Amino acid sequence: MGFWKSLFSTSDRLSAPVKIQQEGRGAIAAEPRIVFSVDRELDLYELEELCDAVGWSRRPLRKVRKALQHSFLVVSMWEERPARRRLIGFARATSDHAFNATIWDVVVHPQFQNKGLGKALMKYTIKKLKSEDISNITLFADPQVVEFYRRLGFLLDPEGIKGMFWYPD
Amino acid sequence: MGFWKSLFSTSDRLSAPVKIQQEGRGAIAAEPRIVFSVDRELDLYELEELCDAVGWSRRPLRKVRKALQHSFLVVSMWEERPARRRLIGFARATSDHAFNATIWDVVVHPQFQNKGLGKALMKYTIKKLKSEDISNITLFADPQVVEFYRRLGFLLDPEGIKGMFWYPD
Ligand SMILES: CC(C)(COP(=O)(O)OP(=O)(O)OC[C@H]1O[C@@H](n2cnc3c(N)ncnc32)[C@H](O)[C@@H]1OP(=O)(O)O)[C@@H](O)C(=O)NCCC(=O)NCCS
Ligand SMILES: CC(C)(COP(=O)(O)OP(=O)(O)OC[C@H]1O[C@@H](n2cnc3c(N)ncnc32)[C@H](O)[C@@H]1OP(=O)(O)O)[C@@H](O)C(=O)NCCC(=O)NCCS
Repeated sequence: MGFWKSLFSTSDRLSAPVKIQQEGRGAIAAEPRIVFSVDRELDLYELEELCDAVGWSRRPLRKVRKALQHSFLVVSMWEERPARRRLIGFARATSDHAFNATIWDVVVHPQFQNKGLGKALMKYTIKKLKSEDISNITLFADPQVVEFYRRLGFLLDPEGIKGMFWYPD
Repeated sequence: MGFWKSLFSTSDRLSAPVKIQQEGRGAIAAEPRIVFSVDRELDLYELEELCDAVGWSRRPLRKVRKALQHSFLVVSMWEERPARRRLIGFARATSDHAFNATIWDVVVHPQFQNKGLGKALMKYTIKKLKSEDISNITLFADPQVVEFYRRLGFLLDPEGIKGMFWYPD
């Protein structure tokens, strides 16, 4: 866990920006780096492994592939060492490309949680959506992560607007 | 308002199925009919007029066009007379084409509200989404319409899942 230290200011781990690399910029260093990407060509088995690690139930890979193809944005977060790249985080968004984007499937591998990386992943996702001129971003938060999103500036039921679900019978 | 009577069973207006026509089936009759369509080639000015009628704030037509193009489903509801067709209802959904669809912009013209047509519009929309093998349908409901959606089978915050919003600063 030691190498993480270098990513944060020790005095204010949580508000300090995480030193991240975006896809394309060279990361030629011996220590591992965190890299973000919006390339949707993911290894679906690696993604399944990541979702398994947080206890999410398995989904047919055929449907996962289709969902990634038809998501507006697919963000992956990688731990990059010279010899290998490991998928450690993921998020995606559906959108009408104009007014609304809805974020789904936000996940950080348990070994990498509580280090500010979920926050960095969300900030990167929000920045990407903002750059596309999306009017507002929505999501559906499990009760245990409402606070995580609130700290990122998401509002709960603003003006009484309520999230609702319909499941096929 | 008299012609509406013919669309409902008089004994149980609300649970009775609305006699509707789907695009393509001939509606050769003197009395007006309600027709549903998933054709997204709408007259944007007619759509704006409909949204104006319920007091929604205007949106740039360029963005509306883009949003319709990139919606997974666009449903329109028409009052059809032999001589003319009038747009009286609308709904659309974004989706990843696999797991989630999110319904937006549900509207029925005030002159046609409280006759079961909003319910018919939503049922048609849900049927279309179900036929596409979507796992679950979500939406964000203004407080005054939560009850409308609840009657259609939508659940409020199931298992504590909360709708959240992020607006650009
Ligand atoms: C939710 C999740 C993405 C957070 O990632 P993370 O890397 O652990 O979060 P961070 O370390 O960046 O935390 C950022 C901030 O949120 C807080 N936070 C993180 N998880 C939290 C939680 N479950 N409840 C309350 N606060 C939380 C942190 O304390 C931190 O607060 P601060 O900035 O005020 O100090 C991660 O825990 C995860 O993948 N969970 C399992 C999957 C899941 O539940 N996803 C959401 C589905 S809706
Ligand atoms: C919300 C709206 C689409 C409903 O359409 P409608 O044609 O009037 O609704 P219906 O006549 O089909 O009503 C169906 C059922 O919902 C109930 N209902 C309708 N509007 C309701 C409301 N605002 N509050 C509570 N119940 C409502 C009806 O009483 C009826 O109940 P029942 O089947 O148990 O008798 C319409 O009022 C509208 O366009 N409103 C303005 C735009 C809007 O607010 N859209 C939603 C944005 S989230």
